[in-house]
Amino acid sequence: MPSVRNKKKPSEVLLYAAPSKNADLRWFSDFQAADPFPAFSAGGRRIGLLPLLEVGRAQKESAFDEVLNLTEIINDLRRTNPQAGIADAITFAALREGVQEFRVPSDFPVGLFLRLKELGLNLISVGSAQDERSAPPLFANRWIKTKKEIDGIKAGNRAACAGFKVVEKILAEAKADKAGKLLWNKKTLTAEVLHSHVQIAVTAAGGQLDAGMICAPGDQAVDCHSEGSGPIYAGQLIVVDIFPRDRASGNYGDMTRTYLKGRATPTQRRMVQSVRKAQQLALKAIRAGVTGADVHKQVAEYLASLGYKTEKAGEQYVGFFHGTGHGVGYDLHEEPYLSARFPKPLQVGQCVTVEPGLYYPGIGGCRIEDCVVVTKSGCQMLSRHPYRWEIA
Amino acid sequence: MPSVRNKKKPSEVLLYAAPSKNADLRWFSDFQAADPFPAFSAGGRRIGLLPLLEVGRAQKESAFDEVLNLTEIINDLRRTNPQAGIADAITFAALREGVQEFRVPSDFPVGLFLRLKELGLNLISVGSAQDERSAPPLFANRWIKTKKEIDGIKAGNRAACAGFKVVEKILAEAKADKAGKLLWNKKTLTAEVLHSHVQIAVTAAGGQLDAGMICAPGDQAVDCHSEGSGPIYAGQLIVVDIFPRDRASGNYGDMTRTYLKGRATPTQRRMVQSVRKAQQLALKAIRAGVTGADVHKQVAEYLASLGYKTEKAGEQYVGFFHGTGHGVGYDLHEEPYLSARFPKPLQVGQCVTVEPGLYYPGIGGCRIEDCVVVTKSGCQMLSRHPYRWEIA
Repeated sequence: MPSVRNKKKPSEVLLYAAPSKNADLRWFSDFQAADPFPAFSAGGRRIGLLPLLEVGRAQKESAFDEVLNLTEIINDLRRTNPQAGIADAITFAALREGVQEFRVPSDFPVGLFLRLKELGLNLISVGSAQDERSAPPLFANRWIKTKKEIDGIKAGNRAACAGFKVVEKILAEAKADKAGKLLWNKKTLTAEVLHSHVQIAVTAAGGQLDAGMICAPGDQAVDCHSEGSGPIYAGQLIVVDIFPRDRASGNYGDMTRTYLKGRATPTQRRMVQSVRKAQQLALKAIRAGVTGADVHKQVAEYLASLGYKTEKAGEQYVGFFHGTGHGVGYDLHEEPYLSARFPKPLQVGQCVTVEPGLYYPGIGGCRIEDCVVVTKSGCQMLSRHPYRWEIA
Repeated sequence: MPSVRNKKKPSEVLLYAAPSKNADLRWFSDFQAADPFPAFSAGGRRIGLLPLLEVGRAQKESAFDEVLNLTEIINDLRRTNPQAGIADAITFAALREGVQEFRVPSDFPVGLFLRLKELGLNLISVGSAQDERSAPPLFANRWIKTKKEIDGIKAGNRAACAGFKVVEKILAEAKADKAGKLLWNKKTLTAEVLHSHVQIAVTAAGGQLDAGMICAPGDQAVDCHSEGSGPIYAGQLIVVDIFPRDRASGNYGDMTRTYLKGRATPTQRRMVQSVRKAQQLALKAIRAGVTGADVHKQVAEYLASLGYKTEKAGEQYVGFFHGTGHGVGYDLHEEPYLSARFPKPLQVGQCVTVEPGLYYPGIGGCRIEDCVVVTKSGCQMLSRHPYRWEIA
């Protein structure tokens, strides 16, 4: 669509998604629903078109200035056009507000986009889809968190801490057999056992692990998105990454601790201490005005200076091969990114994870992760949990 | 895009989504991931383009015949085109397979769609977006469930039953104060208390309530998507709708029971019995070849014949104002629908909920819901839990 590229972007926004799956709509509506519906802005007002069953709840609970009954609008339109559907209802409601042009996010559903254009709306997709991470945001201020959102991220992290506590308790109670395999409650202690106890503890603390969790012992953690499975042995590093959504607010927390039952080897100890120092260095580097790329570069150079090489060894990446952090909020991964390809300066009120890691087969993986909010002169912690990792 | 409408649809499919949020990709990949990635079919093979961090896990766990490293492809392409991104990588991988035309689902992200067309791929959006429910499916056989998927739906329903058991236990232990307000554990019994105990029980049973849940007492249930809040009173109908995703398989269960602490009024009792009879009638009507609209019509006519009027009373709908059921699987709500506007015949292997309900302010709401799989001569239950509802 090159012809529209040079035009001024429309000021109004149109969305179509389920808030439970789409952070933009969750933010725009402050409403929780599992099925998709349309919503748009018009002259500073937020308008939602909700199906019959959701109208009452949306009027009570959402941030919409007006809730329209999508089902009734479609039924009315069908009196003259039996084929009328969601696109016709959106067009009807938009024109009634005098709006004919909208920005839509790059993840707007293409079927609806094409149909709305046929019906005469002028839609501009925001985001080049060249690299999702550098796409211009639909809502410039969604990454700047309100106090309520920051409290939600903290609540997500408190739920994560409930998970760490149960892992620490189980590891403290576990005993190794002669082969070093851990036993707990007279049974083999597996990653699956830790998973299910963390699930229960996080849920009881108000969190929801809708994106899963990681509890990866030994070399499994080198594949750093592996969820982890099977028996756990004394002397293995265990990466525990817990990223619950706070059920009440819809915001995610995201924290990682690395544990080891028994005594670490000097190599393991040096690696864990290096990752923790790298995290402290990142926490000192973060402040408004610094770019995410800068922060990441400092961390990567520090770990390299200690002799930790990042490279591809056969089919496997080793060293520090992921970003230092990512934005967190209504999305688990969102802007800004503390990574090589993120040139924008950090802004006051943005919330990011800080999570350096090192991964080598034979040694295992180590990642330590907390969340912070960027301030003018530095950052403030949004997560709080001890860093004790060697469990006797 | 009228010019392409009359062409034969391309045989290959292209997707871009996060499997945790998108049932098509979850089904296509049999892989669980929280971040989006592209995947396509080529000559009967399934190819996934996974970011660096997911490649190893996808090779082990997914149904892909080939897993390509998206990060490496983009890095390679950037040697000649520094702006290369996901769209360029998809185009590169598709052309290497000799594929230039794809069907994409109507919820494919528009930004990526437009960029891929600029890069020369021919994409056809499947689904008119006129009415999402009547859109032709991307995968004709996704609604026909395999044994593994049916087992997953059953597992989701078993997790729901763990929730009903804890609700029944709490209601049995609760006592009413003089005003009829229920007390449990020396505190006011609220919908929120039931919510949190159901959350924990469902989680411990392997489920995940990522679309929420409903526990709505009294007139709150008349707004039949209200999650419910506040104190619960003896003599109130309490609609408890639990729809957990089975964590292991990714399939949803979906069940509802309606309870009442103490003694029901004759009006309440007649309403609950009528809903149960309507459900039994629907269960008898379902078989391959019957349309969803037919089943719904029988249920609606039966309830109307008992004198239960469905109408809009002021701003509120009362009576039986929702569909009799919906397909369930990797999506909580999917084809087929047992509702007025679903003219397609049911097929062997489709799984649907059966959930008539009645809602009147002053009496409250009642919904009873189970899941079945359609067979040649009828249907088989995929959920099993007693219908005892009056709790002394």
